[in-house]
Amino acid sequence: MPSDPMANPLSLNLSEAMRSVAAEIDAMFDSLLTVPDDPRAVLYEAMRHAAIGGGKRLRPLLVFASANLFNVTRESALRAGLAIEALHVYSLVHDDMPCMDDDDMRRGKPTVHKQWDEAIAVLAGDALHALAFEIAADPLTHPDPFVRAELSYELARASGPSGMAGGQMMDLVAEETTFDLPTTTRLQQLKTGALISFCLEAGAILGHVPPEGRRSLRAYARDIGLAFQIADDLLDVEGDAAVVGKATGKDAGAGKATFVSLLGVERARAQAGMLVDQAIAHLASFGTEADLLRAIARYVIERNH
Amino acid sequence: MPSDPMANPLSLNLSEAMRSVAAEIDAMFDSLLTVPDDPRAVLYEAMRHAAIGGGKRLRPLLVFASANLFNVTRESALRAGLAIEALHVYSLVHDDMPCMDDDDMRRGKPTVHKQWDEAIAVLAGDALHALAFEIAADPLTHPDPFVRAELSYELARASGPSGMAGGQMMDLVAEETTFDLPTTTRLQQLKTGALISFCLEAGAILGHVPPEGRRSLRAYARDIGLAFQIADDLLDVEGDAAVVGKATGKDAGAGKATFVSLLGVERARAQAGMLVDQAIAHLASFGTEADLLRAIARYVIERNH
Repeated sequence: MPSDPMANPLSLNLSEAMRSVAAEIDAMFDSLLTVPDDPRAVLYEAMRHAAIGGGKRLRPLLVFASANLFNVTRESALRAGLAIEALHVYSLVHDDMPCMDDDDMRRGKPTVHKQWDEAIAVLAGDALHALAFEIAADPLTHPDPFVRAELSYELARASGPSGMAGGQMMDLVAEETTFDLPTTTRLQQLKTGALISFCLEAGAILGHVPPEGRRSLRAYARDIGLAFQIADDLLDVEGDAAVVGKATGKDAGAGKATFVSLLGVERARAQAGMLVDQAIAHLASFGTEADLLRAIARYVIERNH
Repeated sequence: MPSDPMANPLSLNLSEAMRSVAAEIDAMFDSLLTVPDDPRAVLYEAMRHAAIGGGKRLRPLLVFASANLFNVTRESALRAGLAIEALHVYSLVHDDMPCMDDDDMRRGKPTVHKQWDEAIAVLAGDALHALAFEIAADPLTHPDPFVRAELSYELARASGPSGMAGGQMMDLVAEETTFDLPTTTRLQQLKTGALISFCLEAGAILGHVPPEGRRSLRAYARDIGLAFQIADDLLDVEGDAAVVGKATGKDAGAGKATFVSLLGVERARAQAGMLVDQAIAHLASFGTEADLLRAIARYVIERNH
């Protein structure tokens, strides 16, 4: 059920914001990843292949929308978003490898290990992981070192064993056990939720908002993160691989518990809708400056890829 | 030619410093990596297997010795050393994988992918990579956010495509081409030299020494980094696998250019000795507070593992 971008001015703003953030992320990766004229060329080509051209850039958009609430410069918001996107892309490159999810296609292109080989996939992922922290801690991202240190610290927490890597570990275990709903929820909160939460938190960090002022954003993030995952599970069951840009029907084939296998299609869809309403309710203390976040919450379950 | 630790008071200090730094690094990894009682347990076990018990801990020792010059607290020096060791250990876990160097043994134990599998090796390496940045940017490591942000930034540079990952890429290319001496030197400066340089720089960053005051330490680091690699190549040719703790004779078998294949054993050994003398000469402006660095420089070519 793709939304019509002309349907209302909010989604018009959303599609405009999405397009411009995506274009700027591409341009920033392009200028950071100039291919050197030496034996490292293939590494940079693989990083570019994974990072440039494709993807919804949902995470940078979330940073951008959150930073919007707190008088953050566009440059700072985009660079923090770029750091998170580099981290996200690294995780996709490793996750696609034969020993992990074993995917041949990603964002409509061959995955890095298919285009090159597994060694290049390991290295390109590792290099993008390091690049994420280089961008986060770079003085160009924010003039205040406290902000850069906090961004780096929280990004590392979101990536490590108590965040994304922990969720991926649970995902490996899920191939052998059938998790119940609370464990599946926890898996997703780590695997994709931790980084999505950090996107919202990053906007607040850039705006010098202390941790106690970030509660409503964290609650919003938790809800849209789960809604996003439920929508992904629905796309895996119902989506068209050509539109989704990667193989569909994989999770059901692998016998993994998903929100759809646990709840059924109808309840899963209802749950996602409820989470989006709840996410939007968490933004009640903000005015029109949070309209982009509200539009993103709705988009998360309306997208078709 | 193992040195006798009782031969002179300097190497006595060195072996004492080595023992105490190694013990503290083990204890810190142990307390950071408590195995959780949930499906992430294997991830933490694999991280512990790779990180605890073993290794010379040369990098933390270098941070400690460098920090010694600048009135840095022991806690700060050890935590910065821990961050770098986590990064080093991650690189070993990935480097040992079948698609990379394909090693079965490391530090006298099975490598992570042998003990578990490749997916766990990818994830444990990734999680240790993130952990390195979590430690570097943690307020416990240094009270000054400027120091934490600079540590994180320089650590990321040392790890990424213009540092270690770039060197590993060159190492992959070296399997198909025979590099000449300048290119082999460049490869090693990136693959192992960048992180060793950062160890010395980290001590100075912790001590608020500005970049222009770090020149002699960088020169020392460049020299001992190369000497270390030449000594490694000599051990690969002449060492006993049981003492070295990993397979020997691999590089020659793979047809890769090494300092030994390019220079021959005698010239390589002479070159390493010359580099160590030069490294020590770069410390001329320091007094006895740099004796530990001088002892490390000598140790680098005298070690037998």
